[in-house]
Amino acid sequence: MDPYVSLAFGGTRSGRPPGSSEIVDAIAEQVRDGARALAGCRLPPIRVLAHRLGVSKNTVSTAYDELKARGLIESRGKRGLYIAPAPAQRVVAPAPTRVPAPELKPAPAALLRPRPNHAKLLVLSSVFIDPRLLPRARLTACFRAALKRPGLSDFSDPQGFLPLRRAIAKRLRQRGIEAEPEHVVTSVGSQQVLDLVARSLRSRTIATENPAYHYGKALFERNDLELLALPIDPFAGVDLARWEQLLRAHRPGLLYMTTHFQNPTGYSYSSREIAAILEWSAALGFGILEDDWGSDMLSYSEFTPSLRTLGGDNVLYMNSFTKKVPPALRIGYVLGNEQTVPALLVSKRLSISGTPAIGEAALYEFLEQGYYDAHLRAIQPELDRRYRHCLELLRQHMPEGVRWTAPGGGPLLWLECPAGLSLPALAARLRERSIVLELSDSAFFGTPHLHGFKLGYAFLSTEEMQRALEVLSAELRHALARSQSVKPAVRAG
Amino acid sequence: MDPYVSLAFGGTRSGRPPGSSEIVDAIAEQVRDGARALAGCRLPPIRVLAHRLGVSKNTVSTAYDELKARGLIESRGKRGLYIAPAPAQRVVAPAPTRVPAPELKPAPAALLRPRPNHAKLLVLSSVFIDPRLLPRARLTACFRAALKRPGLSDFSDPQGFLPLRRAIAKRLRQRGIEAEPEHVVTSVGSQQVLDLVARSLRSRTIATENPAYHYGKALFERNDLELLALPIDPFAGVDLARWEQLLRAHRPGLLYMTTHFQNPTGYSYSSREIAAILEWSAALGFGILEDDWGSDMLSYSEFTPSLRTLGGDNVLYMNSFTKKVPPALRIGYVLGNEQTVPALLVSKRLSISGTPAIGEAALYEFLEQGYYDAHLRAIQPELDRRYRHCLELLRQHMPEGVRWTAPGGGPLLWLECPAGLSLPALAARLRERSIVLELSDSAFFGTPHLHGFKLGYAFLSTEEMQRALEVLSAELRHALARSQSVKPAVRAG
Repeated sequence: MDPYVSLAFGGTRSGRPPGSSEIVDAIAEQVRDGARALAGCRLPPIRVLAHRLGVSKNTVSTAYDELKARGLIESRGKRGLYIAPAPAQRVVAPAPTRVPAPELKPAPAALLRPRPNHAKLLVLSSVFIDPRLLPRARLTACFRAALKRPGLSDFSDPQGFLPLRRAIAKRLRQRGIEAEPEHVVTSVGSQQVLDLVARSLRSRTIATENPAYHYGKALFERNDLELLALPIDPFAGVDLARWEQLLRAHRPGLLYMTTHFQNPTGYSYSSREIAAILEWSAALGFGILEDDWGSDMLSYSEFTPSLRTLGGDNVLYMNSFTKKVPPALRIGYVLGNEQTVPALLVSKRLSISGTPAIGEAALYEFLEQGYYDAHLRAIQPELDRRYRHCLELLRQHMPEGVRWTAPGGGPLLWLECPAGLSLPALAARLRERSIVLELSDSAFFGTPHLHGFKLGYAFLSTEEMQRALEVLSAELRHALARSQSVKPAVRAG
Repeated sequence: MDPYVSLAFGGTRSGRPPGSSEIVDAIAEQVRDGARALAGCRLPPIRVLAHRLGVSKNTVSTAYDELKARGLIESRGKRGLYIAPAPAQRVVAPAPTRVPAPELKPAPAALLRPRPNHAKLLVLSSVFIDPRLLPRARLTACFRAALKRPGLSDFSDPQGFLPLRRAIAKRLRQRGIEAEPEHVVTSVGSQQVLDLVARSLRSRTIATENPAYHYGKALFERNDLELLALPIDPFAGVDLARWEQLLRAHRPGLLYMTTHFQNPTGYSYSSREIAAILEWSAALGFGILEDDWGSDMLSYSEFTPSLRTLGGDNVLYMNSFTKKVPPALRIGYVLGNEQTVPALLVSKRLSISGTPAIGEAALYEFLEQGYYDAHLRAIQPELDRRYRHCLELLRQHMPEGVRWTAPGGGPLLWLECPAGLSLPALAARLRERSIVLELSDSAFFGTPHLHGFKLGYAFLSTEEMQRALEVLSAELRHALARSQSVKPAVRAG
């Protein structure tokens, strides 16, 4: 069946049902006015127009008969009624107009790269936890329970499913962070928290680490924010004097930082550095957004106080469950206070209206039934084993001149290579051997002051890691030998 | 237990495990440097530091003994080891610094209003479908099936769950819209499509209807876009000459419009208007974002061709499932083409990284098993009944001078009141009688050229609608009588 034309019935929309003569007049006017455009188009079937106008089929039928009599419409048998071509012409249907595309911003290729298919590849730089360790059966049960909740089919709370916000606040309080459910705003993973904060901020300058969490950096840059890059060295820590100088000179409105296990360096701030940052915030008047993504990951990482604990509730605190339950759930949150929540909530309502409540209700069940803590306890020994095993392998296999950090928690460490080595060439050689090494170029501002890459030890099994590091070691030795043998020749030339 | 300090071990992070003397040096240096800040803080327990550095507990224990001997740390029995106060002072712990809040944009109260609790209230202006008509048991089964899919625990496709994108493309093709899965980008409801497009757009000017979909308008305004308001009158339609003049004068980069059942007017564009808009787009070079939210709602609404069908694949087409399955699922999508998808995808990755794949996989099952179409078929007669019943009630009960539209589909119509009547006063009186009338003030640009409100007939049962409209009628008559009796007195004064 052909689609049918959409006709206006402005004149008859007075509340009283139109009579057939009013229908005739309305259609006749449009057919005449739009003769060129509408000729050959199908009319709405009688039952459709009758339903729309709330009149009997008879009324419409009478009107159509009159229009046929006037030669304005014609029957094409079973195909229905059509607007008759204007006498002088024989146009069958309106020729589709091809309209121009809206002009959109460029799309950098780096941000479009598909995620590596780890079913076939060993991904050495993933900051995720091995999906084989994630709970699934329990989560299914939680979805079932969630979908049975009355009210869930209705409207969701734009701030986030209230029982989940309560459960989050309770967990935070157990970790020494004062938190009320009404100060929690849930989000689609932690990436959305960065977006909510960025779009709520008055200031156009955000300070963050160099190297930065690269999706955060890319987001801020795309939002035309000015970024102040604060260098960190996972081996030497923070140059406090340099940071203070930069902060004083550029006066950012916000400092976004990851207290523990920063991505990509794996660095955790020392208490001394934290104290200095809080002092500068108070003195220079910038706000703080603390990313605590690693807080539930690996042993012994629960007890270091956060910026939010030490700096008070003006510190925006963010976290997510993405790394600890199936990432496909994508639930994160930001903890604000009376003063900061309203703007964040407006940003959430305007950007996505609300987070999907079904997943939030399922996660709430998962937390409330104790499955989440049980899950963390269950995977901890395995993650610890992977961490120790990774350090051991590095000590065994890495050639002279390669250094790495020992972050003690979180899912990643930084592996630093000798200066002469080509990292892109190394990554390409590994890729040929089915090992994926993601370089962190886009995480740096300008020329990188580090020459290495992140290495994720929570993602691969110990056997996979052994294979991957043996290959890495062989390729590193190969590359180092080549760079040493080639260099003199180049110099001689 | 007190939280413990985070210490830096930069000097020892060379890959070889540090010896106890290196640990002593690293800690001693930080204790001395940070004496004021760190005095009274707890040290990491021996097992924690041993794990972190990948050394034996003995090594750490030896180091701690040495630090005790130097008077830099002290034991507090079962509570653990603490950094000793500096000789001259007796500070117990670093005094928490209260940092300032980041300065955020103001949060308009209208955007923070909680959604009305319709368990106790009759909501007359809801554009949602009655949640009591929505499927639930089948959806639960679909979640169960989705969670059994291999791979779902892993990474989700940032563009959206591929089988769902395939199912969406298939549905669209059945409706005459050319669509490929690789041109579909899923979103958190249709609100996020507006955000993705707004943040991808180069032009800073968007044209939209006046009155507009108010959350879209608020989003664009908050993103500092300039809006060109194109007036529509649900009774008289579009003043084509006026639109052309406005579009020529202001040259927007994009026209955002809802082809059918526009919110809040319920208006559907006539084929003649659609043809004119496509012509202007081609002539003036603006892109089009077509919101087709009502396409699956109520009878007879599947067959009107869309702007995308007539204008080609440069038209951005958006739709969502929010109104037809439990809104708590929050799944929408935008259909672009080769040229427009990359920028939209970058915007999606940067704002939320990816949509939750579990819900998308469940929706895919729901579509694929045929439950969705069966559900639409099942609710259609009830929704048609509600529509006809609503029109009948209006004809029976509304006082002289009140007019309404007969949109024939979608979930809402526009009810226009006589000029003298105070709409806020009417809404307040209804609220006292547990009936919620949402006014559309924020949907208009400047002084509204309409004087009424939207009325949703898919949300309330026929009994509820009867009660609500009887009360509305009584209050309207009351208000009209008062405004007529009061007016002369005012004139006399």
